[in-house]
Amino acid sequence: MTPIMPKSEAAELVVAARIRKKLSWADVAAEIDAPLVWTVAALLGQHPMTAAQADKVCALLELDGPVSESLQRQPGRGIDPAALADPTIYRFQEALAVYGPALKELIHEEFGDGIMSAINFNIEFGRRPHPDGDRVVVTFDGKFLDYRW
Amino acid sequence: MTPIMPKSEAAELVVAARIRKKLSWADVAAEIDAPLVWTVAALLGQHPMTAAQADKVCALLELDGPVSESLQRQPGRGIDPAALADPTIYRFQEALAVYGPALKELIHEEFGDGIMSAINFNIEFGRRPHPDGDRVVVTFDGKFLDYRW
Amino acid sequence: MTPIMPKSEAAELVVAARIRKKLSWADVAAEIDAPLVWTVAALLGQHPMTAAQADKVCALLELDGPVSESLQRQPGRGIDPAALADPTIYRFQEALAVYGPALKELIHEEFGDGIMSAINFNIEFGRRPHPDGDRVVVTFDGKFLDYRW
Amino acid sequence: MTPIMPKSEAAELVVAARIRKKLSWADVAAEIDAPLVWTVAALLGQHPMTAAQADKVCALLELDGPVSESLQRQPGRGIDPAALADPTIYRFQEALAVYGPALKELIHEEFGDGIMSAINFNIEFGRRPHPDGDRVVVTFDGKFLDYRW
Amino acid sequence: MTPIMPKSEAAELVVAARIRKKLSWADVAAEIDAPLVWTVAALLGQHPMTAAQADKVCALLELDGPVSESLQRQPGRGIDPAALADPTIYRFQEALAVYGPALKELIHEEFGDGIMSAINFNIEFGRRPHPDGDRVVVTFDGKFLDYRW
Amino acid sequence: MTPIMPKSEAAELVVAARIRKKLSWADVAAEIDAPLVWTVAALLGQHPMTAAQADKVCALLELDGPVSESLQRQPGRGIDPAALADPTIYRFQEALAVYGPALKELIHEEFGDGIMSAINFNIEFGRRPHPDGDRVVVTFDGKFLDYRW
Amino acid sequence: MTPIMPKSEAAELVVAARIRKKLSWADVAAEIDAPLVWTVAALLGQHPMTAAQADKVCALLELDGPVSESLQRQPGRGIDPAALADPTIYRFQEALAVYGPALKELIHEEFGDGIMSAINFNIEFGRRPHPDGDRVVVTFDGKFLDYRW
Amino acid sequence: MTPIMPKSEAAELVVAARIRKKLSWADVAAEIDAPLVWTVAALLGQHPMTAAQADKVCALLELDGPVSESLQRQPGRGIDPAALADPTIYRFQEALAVYGPALKELIHEEFGDGIMSAINFNIEFGRRPHPDGDRVVVTFDGKFLDYRW
Amino acid sequence: MTPIMPKSEAAELVVAARIRKKLSWADVAAEIDAPLVWTVAALLGQHPMTAAQADKVCALLELDGPVSESLQRQPGRGIDPAALADPTIYRFQEALAVYGPALKELIHEEFGDGIMSAINFNIEFGRRPHPDGDRVVVTFDGKFLDYRW
Amino acid sequence: MTPIMPKSEAAELVVAARIRKKLSWADVAAEIDAPLVWTVAALLGQHPMTAAQADKVCALLELDGPVSESLQRQPGRGIDPAALADPTIYRFQEALAVYGPALKELIHEEFGDGIMSAINFNIEFGRRPHPDGDRVVVTFDGKFLDYRW
Repeated sequence: MTPIMPKSEAAELVVAARIRKKLSWADVAAEIDAPLVWTVAALLGQHPMTAAQADKVCALLELDGPVSESLQRQPGRGIDPAALADPTIYRFQEALAVYGPALKELIHEEFGDGIMSAINFNIEFGRRPHPDGDRVVVTFDGKFLDYRW
Repeated sequence: MTPIMPKSEAAELVVAARIRKKLSWADVAAEIDAPLVWTVAALLGQHPMTAAQADKVCALLELDGPVSESLQRQPGRGIDPAALADPTIYRFQEALAVYGPALKELIHEEFGDGIMSAINFNIEFGRRPHPDGDRVVVTFDGKFLDYRW
Repeated sequence: MTPIMPKSEAAELVVAARIRKKLSWADVAAEIDAPLVWTVAALLGQHPMTAAQADKVCALLELDGPVSESLQRQPGRGIDPAALADPTIYRFQEALAVYGPALKELIHEEFGDGIMSAINFNIEFGRRPHPDGDRVVVTFDGKFLDYRW
Repeated sequence: MTPIMPKSEAAELVVAARIRKKLSWADVAAEIDAPLVWTVAALLGQHPMTAAQADKVCALLELDGPVSESLQRQPGRGIDPAALADPTIYRFQEALAVYGPALKELIHEEFGDGIMSAINFNIEFGRRPHPDGDRVVVTFDGKFLDYRW
Repeated sequence: MTPIMPKSEAAELVVAARIRKKLSWADVAAEIDAPLVWTVAALLGQHPMTAAQADKVCALLELDGPVSESLQRQPGRGIDPAALADPTIYRFQEALAVYGPALKELIHEEFGDGIMSAINFNIEFGRRPHPDGDRVVVTFDGKFLDYRW
Repeated sequence: MTPIMPKSEAAELVVAARIRKKLSWADVAAEIDAPLVWTVAALLGQHPMTAAQADKVCALLELDGPVSESLQRQPGRGIDPAALADPTIYRFQEALAVYGPALKELIHEEFGDGIMSAINFNIEFGRRPHPDGDRVVVTFDGKFLDYRW
Repeated sequence: MTPIMPKSEAAELVVAARIRKKLSWADVAAEIDAPLVWTVAALLGQHPMTAAQADKVCALLELDGPVSESLQRQPGRGIDPAALADPTIYRFQEALAVYGPALKELIHEEFGDGIMSAINFNIEFGRRPHPDGDRVVVTFDGKFLDYRW
Repeated sequence: MTPIMPKSEAAELVVAARIRKKLSWADVAAEIDAPLVWTVAALLGQHPMTAAQADKVCALLELDGPVSESLQRQPGRGIDPAALADPTIYRFQEALAVYGPALKELIHEEFGDGIMSAINFNIEFGRRPHPDGDRVVVTFDGKFLDYRW
Repeated sequence: MTPIMPKSEAAELVVAARIRKKLSWADVAAEIDAPLVWTVAALLGQHPMTAAQADKVCALLELDGPVSESLQRQPGRGIDPAALADPTIYRFQEALAVYGPALKELIHEEFGDGIMSAINFNIEFGRRPHPDGDRVVVTFDGKFLDYRW
Repeated sequence: MTPIMPKSEAAELVVAARIRKKLSWADVAAEIDAPLVWTVAALLGQHPMTAAQADKVCALLELDGPVSESLQRQPGRGIDPAALADPTIYRFQEALAVYGPALKELIHEEFGDGIMSAINFNIEFGRRPHPDGDRVVVTFDGKFLDYRW
């Protein structure tokens, strides 16, 4: 009996295969007909895949069974706090520090007492052309949940 | 000589006046013809206002001169870490923990080595009707900056 | 213009009045016809009350208008981390450390990938008589939310 | 002489075997005729098992002697703080932040000065059907202990 | 309506009065016929006193009603982490770091799986004469509680 | 040349051998004619043993030379902070949080300005029978050291 | 006898006066004929001023004696860690995270084993015009100190 | 399939080869015709190299393919917090603590509300001869970015 | 009844009076015929003074009774962690980080298993003239205490 | 190509060899004719050695080339924070907490605004016989550096 391969290890193998095979993340997402951000997050270890999805990804990337098994396992979600200091990720963190309390005010004003769900939730990533330089556009879209006793 | 009123104190007074006068944040933003999220963030202490903006807000809310002076001061930006645990704000933090590394992968794939600016940046807040319950939609929109020596 | 009384200050006044008037928390909850745990949490600053609720509580406890105004304000939720070390609260924290991963396993097995909502959620407190010493019984009851893109 | 297998390693093997053999946690608990939550917690490393229990579990899961020996060892209890950020576990943590001080008030009012034991304690997990979506129900049940000099 | 005096403030007044009246802690404990360590801990804010005890202490120390009311209130227990660095307190912390795991081994060997209660618990403080210099002797005495589901 | 075996590794081997040979800690302490708590602490890596002691222990437990060499090495003392959260150890920590400042007051009143030594120090562990359940009794006994310039 | 005004309080008064009198930091530095960055740092509380300097600044800004006395006092130097998260300051912190180890390599290669002094040290701030947008230029200039026994 | 060699491992091999071959960092930078600080930072894992750059470095240092592949991978940027305590790096950290708020004041005065970019940014390292001892001179040069909605 | 003045407040008054009266620390130490470092530490709040010492200091500095009472009170010892970052204090901290483990090795080699007491301890401060610049010389002198059961 | 052996690993081998060959640290220091504290610190990984020194130490201790190469490498200096809790090292830390601010006052009074260098610095370790028990004497001796712009 061997333990299931840790998701961090599976992710490293997926990333290595994707780079060496010169496939884009969009290629991988297309293979399993799943949304782009969801697919990347799942392959980095944040969502479980179905057996069909995991097997297709492994076939595409020529990875073997233990990787597929790992991709199907229920994850413990979260991020290494050190990774939040990477500048590309940190800018989101900084925006949250600057605008978080304003978003809270506006959610309560518009919807009442409650939250934006991070579970019934999706996120979209896009590029917006702009004469002064193209822009990264990221949309958080979650169901409003009101505090309900 | 008295010190300039701290922005946290000015924010408390703005919030109190807004509630007692039954004005919405949108009313305040309309008064100074500024974007909604920017206005709330500025009044909570995260952006300096021009003298004209600050005076208009104070007139609307019947606040006096020291509040206006405080609103114009250059802020030290950031959030009390304890405030990140408020559930309404925390869900954004959690989404960042789950999707941050995926966003990093996608930014680098689409744009190359660089970041989404949090300075040349705006954020939009909206409500999307949905039969299963309306949704909070928050869009981060920042200029891509490539690492350039 | 004065700022709204902080919720921590209103809570201190509520607690003082309740003790001096020899009223139980159940008396206060009954006055506003609201669930017991919800009422205590709201008065300690974790939920906003309606104007009617806040006014009734203040009338019962002979507290004045600023307390009522404070009780109606939208809170920033959370706990001072130092308070988690109080032995009565810490035992819940310890139980979570011992059983949290087991609960996660069981939620996923029973419901699939998702969480127990802490928003569409209630909590009940009770006493169970037992020959070896009566028992504290606390029930967490939250809607299951599945990860849904 | 070899050291005893760490409980984290034994837990990984138990989990892998359970998944590969398509057994539920309830199947495993039934095999040793023990409560469900207790069984999962014990197998994840939070309680020692008797030799009989450990051997039965290993027979069911086709794990060998070192796993059984590890399951019998007295554990050091606790949770990796990083695991508390997993959303499924975090919601319990958040509920404790929101309702912990209210529970403390109610315990002292009902029972006097003391605590709910986390040692003479059990926890039950269940599913409550509900037209708006089924609910996770978790009950903490611990003996009241009064401060007694 | 005024809030109840914080226990830290009451403790400062008790300490000041005790020193200025040149009373020992033993004198105060004798006045209320209570154990010495319990009395000091209670007056420093870690245990609630009965009205009779609080009133007697205040009479002895010539402190007024708000102090007595504060001494009767249910405390939030714990210590400012900075205070653990005081050398007199730190030596206990250091002893726990050196001998804590050994005590855990011995408790489990002697009593089985469980803990020494810190609630059904008392602590004694004494002086043991010794030719090489007298010794501080502190005895922790708590009921064994076995993990019992 | 190989490095000396880390004390944590030696401790794991000692513990494994003790359990498999069904020896009690008292058996091991008796073998080297040393106090019980001291012996356990030393074998867990908190005190250096003499060559004679280390060799006797290894003979009893059938452990080889590198273990004996490791047991003789001067340790770096201390505890993994995570281990303080184990409930059996935490209760001592909690007692220190509740009673530490009271002990400081009493030490200064009885002995003057100074500390209980944690070096010229011993600790005793015992069981006290009691009709309501036997009790764990732990005595800290350290030389008083006065601040002396 | 009154305590010396804290430097943070003096800094708040200096900043308020500077803004209200519409003086630039360069105006203030010119008044005392001192380097620009040094002057700002000193007035924010990081360097002591001579009596002549402090008095001249106070005359210029119409601040009274206690401010001057405070400016002359020897400071405890440092920054509130929360202030490091202000985006304008954080970018320097981030640059240090990215380039700090490279600077260490280059200092050792060029100078040998040692450090750049932060005491025998000055810092210059400037603006460099650039067709793509002007640039902030900050130069750290410190004496090399070699490890010398 | 093997994972891509971690950048920390590649950096260790680069450093070892550079020392053993008695090449300076300037030699390596010259080989790829890139700025000195950039090159060192890239080789320590903070910037991705092009295939041409990575291959040239590996040829010069006689390192094999996996090192080159690792050098080309997009990094997660940042520093181990423990490394900030190295005295050579710490002096920059200390200078930032002393002068950071002053730099913030001067940037806002000179440029308005905004930041020095750490992305459109370069850093120069040099030696300035001085009769009292040569000096380390480090220049941070980044594009000013104004807060722009 | 008023509380005893906090030692931090007394220290601020002592420092203010010492500066305004242009007395050196040595003048104050001479007045009470006590060692220099001890005197400064005591007045900053780290040691209790006798009534005679405290009264003499207050007479010299023209401070009133509450200051003297405060100086006599038993302190809670320790330092605000933020103060350790002051460069003048930090250099001692850094030296301890570089040489602490070496001192531990040498203490054990020379004296056996034990520590340098920080209680039966004194510290001397001096200036050593040197052609390259005078030197700060600080001597820690503490009784060796061996681990003795 | 292999990486250079980490200094922590080299230190473990040096320590093991020194103990097994029954050599004192003084023996090792004598072999390379270097100061005692410096030698121990260097061998524990805090200073680079010259090739001649490293080779001599390795010859004396019969260690091979990779150890010598490691000893010559430029270190990253610092201490694992956990090691500061070892009682032998902690007493220095505690003395710094008690006397650090006093030393700061005295340095500024005697020398003006500046610091004791920790780079142009040496430390001496000695034993002072005393009838009440011999004493550990540690002298910090560093060049005074004045803040000089």
